[in-house]
Amino acid sequence: LLVSLELKFCGFFVSEREGLTVKMKMKMKVLLLLGCCCGLVCAGQNRSDPRDQRLFPVLSINYDYVQMPFEVSLWILLASLMKLGFHLLPVLSGVVPESCLLIVVGLLVGGLIRVMGKNPPVLDSQLFFLCLLPPIILDAGYFLPIRPFTENAGTILTFAVLGTLWNVFFMGAVLYGACRLEAGRLASVDLLSCLLFGSIVSAVDPVAVLAVFEEIHINELLHILVFGESLLNDAVTVVLYHLFEEFAHAGEVTVGDVFLGVVCFFVVALGGVMVGGVYGVLAAFTSRFTSHTRVIEPLFVFLYSYMAYLSAEVFHLSGIMALIACGVVMRPYVEANISHKSYTTIKYFLKMWSSVSETLIFIFLGVSTVAGPHAWNWTFVSITIVLCLLSRVLGVVGLTYIINKYRMVKLSGKDQFIVAYGGLRGAIAFSLAFLLSSDDFPMKDMFLTAIITVIFFTVFVQGMTIRPLVELLAVKKKKKTKCSINEEIHTQFLEHLLAGIEGVCGHYGHHHWRHKLDRFNKRYIRRCLIGGERSQEPQLVSFYNKMELKQALMLLESNSSANLSTGDTAAAP
Amino acid sequence: LLVSLELKFCGFFVSEREGLTVKMKMKMKVLLLLGCCCGLVCAGQNRSDPRDQRLFPVLSINYDYVQMPFEVSLWILLASLMKLGFHLLPVLSGVVPESCLLIVVGLLVGGLIRVMGKNPPVLDSQLFFLCLLPPIILDAGYFLPIRPFTENAGTILTFAVLGTLWNVFFMGAVLYGACRLEAGRLASVDLLSCLLFGSIVSAVDPVAVLAVFEEIHINELLHILVFGESLLNDAVTVVLYHLFEEFAHAGEVTVGDVFLGVVCFFVVALGGVMVGGVYGVLAAFTSRFTSHTRVIEPLFVFLYSYMAYLSAEVFHLSGIMALIACGVVMRPYVEANISHKSYTTIKYFLKMWSSVSETLIFIFLGVSTVAGPHAWNWTFVSITIVLCLLSRVLGVVGLTYIINKYRMVKLSGKDQFIVAYGGLRGAIAFSLAFLLSSDDFPMKDMFLTAIITVIFFTVFVQGMTIRPLVELLAVKKKKKTKCSINEEIHTQFLEHLLAGIEGVCGHYGHHHWRHKLDRFNKRYIRRCLIGGERSQEPQLVSFYNKMELKQALMLLESNSSANLSTGDTAAAP
Repeated sequence: LLVSLELKFCGFFVSEREGLTVKMKMKMKVLLLLGCCCGLVCAGQNRSDPRDQRLFPVLSINYDYVQMPFEVSLWILLASLMKLGFHLLPVLSGVVPESCLLIVVGLLVGGLIRVMGKNPPVLDSQLFFLCLLPPIILDAGYFLPIRPFTENAGTILTFAVLGTLWNVFFMGAVLYGACRLEAGRLASVDLLSCLLFGSIVSAVDPVAVLAVFEEIHINELLHILVFGESLLNDAVTVVLYHLFEEFAHAGEVTVGDVFLGVVCFFVVALGGVMVGGVYGVLAAFTSRFTSHTRVIEPLFVFLYSYMAYLSAEVFHLSGIMALIACGVVMRPYVEANISHKSYTTIKYFLKMWSSVSETLIFIFLGVSTVAGPHAWNWTFVSITIVLCLLSRVLGVVGLTYIINKYRMVKLSGKDQFIVAYGGLRGAIAFSLAFLLSSDDFPMKDMFLTAIITVIFFTVFVQGMTIRPLVELLAVKKKKKTKCSINEEIHTQFLEHLLAGIEGVCGHYGHHHWRHKLDRFNKRYIRRCLIGGERSQEPQLVSFYNKMELKQALMLLESNSSANLSTGDTAAAP
Repeated sequence: LLVSLELKFCGFFVSEREGLTVKMKMKMKVLLLLGCCCGLVCAGQNRSDPRDQRLFPVLSINYDYVQMPFEVSLWILLASLMKLGFHLLPVLSGVVPESCLLIVVGLLVGGLIRVMGKNPPVLDSQLFFLCLLPPIILDAGYFLPIRPFTENAGTILTFAVLGTLWNVFFMGAVLYGACRLEAGRLASVDLLSCLLFGSIVSAVDPVAVLAVFEEIHINELLHILVFGESLLNDAVTVVLYHLFEEFAHAGEVTVGDVFLGVVCFFVVALGGVMVGGVYGVLAAFTSRFTSHTRVIEPLFVFLYSYMAYLSAEVFHLSGIMALIACGVVMRPYVEANISHKSYTTIKYFLKMWSSVSETLIFIFLGVSTVAGPHAWNWTFVSITIVLCLLSRVLGVVGLTYIINKYRMVKLSGKDQFIVAYGGLRGAIAFSLAFLLSSDDFPMKDMFLTAIITVIFFTVFVQGMTIRPLVELLAVKKKKKTKCSINEEIHTQFLEHLLAGIEGVCGHYGHHHWRHKLDRFNKRYIRRCLIGGERSQEPQLVSFYNKMELKQALMLLESNSSANLSTGDTAAAP
């Protein structure tokens, strides 16, 4: 009887912590086990009546032992089930982006936990930066479309560095001015706090951008512009954040500090890239020797990338840049070395992992909103939102005006609008604000509330309206790329031609340097990093093989998944 | 300068903890960063000379922040690199099983850490049972060959239950007798401790068996006999372990307690299977709805299985049985529901994970051997080893004598020898002994030492000699199964025939019940748990499709991996 009571209690306890789904599950188990357990314990009590003290426990409970992994699994399961549920409701998932729905679920779960009299868990910053963020960034970095990225590198860097700097200082300055005008609480906000707040709130968030842009299928150029900016502005954010935090702690700012800040930016950005590059080369080199142990090939990709991220974080370098550099560097060599099945495992596992991380991040954002101490200030919040929109629009329009002078393909007004409108904020901003110490920043709660509001505004309002706007403006969508051998031949031919023309002109543009890099790569690096026989294959032949394999796989899959009666003309799933 | 010193210190500190590989890696990074860091800090110091106190840190270090994940990653990386290294030495890996080499590596790493004046980490039991064991068991359970397992279920259960019981009580009793005879320290060992020790040391270990048997390619019957025994004896071990532990704590034992112990065995075994079954059905049911979210399909398999294991562990049921039941129940339905790529991801990820867990377990076994407090007792250790061998041989021979009366295919002398000789002990025994409290069992250290010795003896002596013995005795090897459509048709035909004959005779044997179960499954369960169109396919057609797909994939892989010049007749890699 005691045991069964304990069981019930345990079930209740867990359900209180985890919400509805768990309750049902635990109840089921309790019901299942209650029967046999009660019977057994009673039998035991009848038999060994004389000793009423010690009784051999047929069924005992030790929840503490498994609490941590059990609750982590439950949260992940809850998140996955939620994700599953949405996609079963085509009406809902067609209109609202998944991120919005997940935040709403988080709000509901948080409310439920609060109603039950417990404190909802907050999105812990360490958990976020060490566990949830890396898979998403690695997935993005490993499958980064290199060609559009390098072709637009200048534009992306301008937006990421100058754009973010503009946003930070414009927002910080105007916000400070607005706070001066306002009497009361806001008067105590100093310039440094405003700048720090600006540096936190003005960076575009890769997680939010990915979540929304994956669903609207925008064309490749706009996607890489916004997404590339969100990745590369990490270095700026990290530096400015640490800079202002340090200044706020120290009190005064000298010219030397400002100079060091500029130096620090290069250290953080290039250091991160270097750390990532080193690990990338190590990973590529390791994968050269895995032909006898195919089974652990994917592990090396995950481990080296994660260690690149952690190593960068140790030195406060940009972990995101490190992860992306690592993914970009290792990918061509790793893929040449590993087996086809390992490749599938890496690809699908990364996708799965990043998808779950994303889901968890949005749910926890919702839960944290319910949990956190809030300090709501109408003026501050509304000024922040207006400034966010305004500085983004001004920044994008201003920078595009300069950029368009150097671009071959100009950015149209529509493009500028989407780039400005797609600047979503997300969980990175929240986590950075959460890390602030309340001693140095007495306004921390107000900042957090404002940041959450900005995140909600961008994710809900912008995230939900961007799809209709894209339709309305008839922005070019992504076209399904069908790679043909003809295309490949002509692209290569044109590139050689351009490199040749550049050589003849004596103008060493980026075609020339790409050609040089390509030859260097083929002559020396590939020889070191790629083992086995595959390296002798000419590029065109290997491309042909890859294409063949892909088509054959598609055909096979469509064959095996469709019924036999529909024949082999059925479309791939 | 300060920063660079700090860097050096940090590098040294880490290298001390992690051994050689790390040292090199950290050194490299230190060297890489030292240059820019020194220059920058000096520049900074020159510039902001007036304020000698606060200086904006261009490069700061916060190792504590990432310590845990970083060190975990490093251990896994070290383990994977070791595994990689062995397979590059064909001379070594041809003679010595991987498990032995990994233990030796563990011993070396432990020795290195000890020489450096630190305490090597011990294989923590919680870590082992909650993180390292589940992937291995899930891999084994999910890919358990159902047909040979069910066909030999009687034999396997007899070995697992009766064999283990025999081992425990024979060893416990004889050990107690031997301790009586011996004067001195051993005289204080009581009967309960001996039985507990017996229960820990007599169970065959699935991890060790898998590691050795995978390499010797023994025939399917022997493999499933030894491996099945190692999986199913978990229930017996869990019950006896908790029983004796409880008795040792309580002091006296009544008839009621013994009865409860027997009841407890059924609760632990059947309860574990039931918990696993419930989660398996849940997983199968969930996978019915994943057709819109293919990307998280593999996650459900991992999550539900892990939660089955944890739920069983909460109630001290057999987690291993739960995991296997979960894997076996979910597999046919999950595989019918999920996409081909998800299947590949699940398969390869499970293989990768279990392989890494195995590697870590063996390395940590070595490290723990160096770390642990030892109490070496020649008499006790040698008696234990002799008894282990003796009771195993007696048990197997005696039980086979009984079993052979009921088996169609008798177990020959050779088979008995391999079954007896393949009874390896491993990390589960070590972890169970490690969990004992020193208060109840003052002999804990001696027990641990004896168990480690037994593990080393079985893994090294038996593990290394079993391959030559298998060759010498000319034991039937595993034949490469080439599934042909002809075989499938005839097997199905024969089964229907046998079920029919059984029906005509009025003898309801296992063919009859399998037929019933099959029809029930097809009529009701498959309809609930499998969504989409694939369920209408007749079994033969789906088998044909699967075979075609497999062959096509093999052909493609061989084509794309071999050079074009060798043509499409090249063998698959």
